[in-house]
Amino acid sequence: MYFYVQSRFSLLTADGQTMEPTVGDLSDPLINHTEGQLFLHEAFKIIVEEVLCKGTDVKEKVCEWKEPEELALLLDLELREKGEQKEKLLQRVRDVAKYSVKTSHPRFFNQQFAGVDYHSLAGRFLSEALNTNLFTYEVAPVFVLMEAEVLRGLRELVGWTEGDGLFCPGGSTSNMYALNLARYRLYPEVKSQGLWSLPRLTIFTSPESHYSVKKGAAFMGFGMDNVIFVKVDDGGHMIPEDLDEKIKLSKSQGAVPHFVSCTSGTTVQGAFDPLDRIADVCDKHKLWLHVDAAWGGSVLFSKKHRHLMKGVNRANSVAWNPHKMLVAGLQCSVLLLKDTTNLLKKCHGANASYLFQQDKFYDVNLDIGDKSVQCSRKVDCLKLWLMWKAVGSTGLEQRVDKAFFHTRYLVEQMKKRDGFQLLREPEFVNVCFWFIPPSLRGKEKNADYQNRLAKVAPVIKERMMKQGTMMVGYQPLGDRVNFFRITILSPLISQKDLDFFLDEIERLGNDV
Amino acid sequence: MYFYVQSRFSLLTADGQTMEPTVGDLSDPLINHTEGQLFLHEAFKIIVEEVLCKGTDVKEKVCEWKEPEELALLLDLELREKGEQKEKLLQRVRDVAKYSVKTSHPRFFNQQFAGVDYHSLAGRFLSEALNTNLFTYEVAPVFVLMEAEVLRGLRELVGWTEGDGLFCPGGSTSNMYALNLARYRLYPEVKSQGLWSLPRLTIFTSPESHYSVKKGAAFMGFGMDNVIFVKVDDGGHMIPEDLDEKIKLSKSQGAVPHFVSCTSGTTVQGAFDPLDRIADVCDKHKLWLHVDAAWGGSVLFSKKHRHLMKGVNRANSVAWNPHKMLVAGLQCSVLLLKDTTNLLKKCHGANASYLFQQDKFYDVNLDIGDKSVQCSRKVDCLKLWLMWKAVGSTGLEQRVDKAFFHTRYLVEQMKKRDGFQLLREPEFVNVCFWFIPPSLRGKEKNADYQNRLAKVAPVIKERMMKQGTMMVGYQPLGDRVNFFRITILSPLISQKDLDFFLDEIERLGNDV
Repeated sequence: MYFYVQSRFSLLTADGQTMEPTVGDLSDPLINHTEGQLFLHEAFKIIVEEVLCKGTDVKEKVCEWKEPEELALLLDLELREKGEQKEKLLQRVRDVAKYSVKTSHPRFFNQQFAGVDYHSLAGRFLSEALNTNLFTYEVAPVFVLMEAEVLRGLRELVGWTEGDGLFCPGGSTSNMYALNLARYRLYPEVKSQGLWSLPRLTIFTSPESHYSVKKGAAFMGFGMDNVIFVKVDDGGHMIPEDLDEKIKLSKSQGAVPHFVSCTSGTTVQGAFDPLDRIADVCDKHKLWLHVDAAWGGSVLFSKKHRHLMKGVNRANSVAWNPHKMLVAGLQCSVLLLKDTTNLLKKCHGANASYLFQQDKFYDVNLDIGDKSVQCSRKVDCLKLWLMWKAVGSTGLEQRVDKAFFHTRYLVEQMKKRDGFQLLREPEFVNVCFWFIPPSLRGKEKNADYQNRLAKVAPVIKERMMKQGTMMVGYQPLGDRVNFFRITILSPLISQKDLDFFLDEIERLGNDV
Repeated sequence: MYFYVQSRFSLLTADGQTMEPTVGDLSDPLINHTEGQLFLHEAFKIIVEEVLCKGTDVKEKVCEWKEPEELALLLDLELREKGEQKEKLLQRVRDVAKYSVKTSHPRFFNQQFAGVDYHSLAGRFLSEALNTNLFTYEVAPVFVLMEAEVLRGLRELVGWTEGDGLFCPGGSTSNMYALNLARYRLYPEVKSQGLWSLPRLTIFTSPESHYSVKKGAAFMGFGMDNVIFVKVDDGGHMIPEDLDEKIKLSKSQGAVPHFVSCTSGTTVQGAFDPLDRIADVCDKHKLWLHVDAAWGGSVLFSKKHRHLMKGVNRANSVAWNPHKMLVAGLQCSVLLLKDTTNLLKKCHGANASYLFQQDKFYDVNLDIGDKSVQCSRKVDCLKLWLMWKAVGSTGLEQRVDKAFFHTRYLVEQMKKRDGFQLLREPEFVNVCFWFIPPSLRGKEKNADYQNRLAKVAPVIKERMMKQGTMMVGYQPLGDRVNFFRITILSPLISQKDLDFFLDEIERLGNDV
């Protein structure tokens, strides 16, 4: 027995299964707004309850670890011919939330995103509902103007009263854009003729820079071997004198050095390369200076800490991810440019006549899509704009200052305890440390000490994941064996969470 | 006079302005969950009201056109030192919604995204709230498994029981990935040594393909001149015989042809290149066959229409954007690969030790991030998965069939009216047509006819935008002057909306 659901997409059998449609149905809308909005309301309630309330409650787990095979069964991921009923779908929303990692939880220290900002989240929901594309003024009038204002505000912090920029899908893409602009400025014929018409170009960065410089170089046809690593000091800062040497060496080998990628806030150690002194070297050799400030750029909001990026105004381009320290939510990543010659558009433009018609009735300079190598480009500015409006530059400054403040607190507490050994005093909000379990203390001279120490962090990590009490990452670096790196950025944490962190490392690691 | 707001980010003065923080505040959380969730609830209500109710109501405007200067004033975009109070922020949410284009409105026909699916939207809200990154299993266990299942489901429709793939930030990126994989397969040394170590590579596509092929070629170092246009027939389909000729010619000029990008659903005309016959040419010359099915890929859900992509199973890669015809919401774009040799990871991997540690306690093959050239990668699979679960493959098939059905309806109605002149019978759901106003009818032989006709669409477009009644795009193509292109895809429309479309074109254009 069948019955017809008005304006709905299909026939339903009495047991609620969907049936093949009849052609006649096709003349009417397939989606019913009332039903749809009801579903959305109920899903919203679950999101608030599971992700925003339970997911930020220290009495709840950060993650509910399951082995992949078990999780696949629990989630019943398979996609089928027939649709499902509302209650089942709502249960799916709940399950997805339940088994996902709670990155807003005060004990999530695993990555450079953590915490939640509700104004940003409201902006993200609004962006999703409006579902438009940032290529022309006619489909995104609000966001074309808003993106320009947010970029202007960020450029001002860099120290530029003019310039250009773009929101990109992540810092890796921003870094690639900078690479493309630099080679195009030097050799505009690359756009039409490719790299074959150019001498071999070399790129300079430190071995502690983000891996995206190498990935980008491969993707864009430079090749990873043409990324030349400049030596760093113990703290992970690029050494300007070595940069100068490496540039000269590369020239002597017949290559054309053209691009230096400095880092403000390296991924592991949180080091800030000395921009002013590197800018001197770039000036001397006429190289494009790019600053990958994806992680560290937010210090520019802080009067107290912005000195870490002194000289950034001398750069040609800056990559900066407000989705990291400012808690704007993934993805929120900008490329900022000092250029005022419309280089972005000249370098990337293809003048597609179906989209960027020149006989429109408004100023076609507002059709910014041709600056991008994307066609569809998500709206990523609204979340940052709304959050910035809500707390002001002062509120964002406070987030940065708070993160530094908490970092100092954590380091001081570490020093009061046995077994926590810093790699070095933190310069930023990354704290890199070994936990030395009692079984290894005082045995630094033993031949197997480093091997045994290397195995400590993975064991603690496995235990914390399986118990779900917190999350923090570890890694080796150069000749330093596995150590933990905690990044402190969430505005939701308090000193109690940091005390818990240290207690928990001890609890999980004391018997290793 | 000041008073302290517990757990809030700042001191407030009596008139509600924020003050400089004291250091003592920094030990506590800066964000209050209760206040934040209250804001989110109220913003959600506004989103439902303004975007989902009013924004889909045919009695309301599709857009509220403002000149940029006026809009900037209305929005008060400037970012300031001090934050704002809740009521003002909620008004901002309302204003952003009010002045944004309503892409879910039944009279939005401007682009290849339109309409709203509530299950997808719930998935998008959940993805935003969970705010994680698809690089490792440990931070995205649910989504690593889910992405794999969605890719599997889509590959199955292509006709592949095995393979690989990735969600990308848009179809342009998917096309670039395919280009990179093709050159790496042929010359793996490109990854380390760059294009200088390779012979000149050439790429083949039709002049009606998406501009991203040329943009990608420039970005990746091939150069736009190495994209060779293959002739198309009147309907915009690539001519396989000409492809064969152009490949031979390119070889004779010393280049190495390596990549053919076919289009399934061209942007303007909606043409489907003859994949089977092109695959024969690719087989003969051993070229990588890529299918840019960003727009047309969704026909694979339809038993009735999937013949348009016959031969797609012979491709090496397919780009497909479910954010277009399936209404999954921006961004939702996949690259599908036939490859089973882990080419994605070999080609793009950088083995960053801070992220992709090999001594993890779980199967590190689940850490898929190294397949991507992004580091942060948004979760784009959940919205499609939840929607697919909700309506089943059958429901998605029905969306596709409905779009074709409505297209037929529109074309039949056009033929019953004076003044609507098709470029040709539509193959897909793009309907390209001129509106000939009464003043031009019967004057096709006049010398200024084409010039005058070219000016008709821009005038009608300006009027419709300023009145806000509907949105549709226009463009020239080759020697054909400005014509309208309507794309019919929203599952929310009915025949009445199409009747309205024709009436409105007449109303706006009859006196031109």
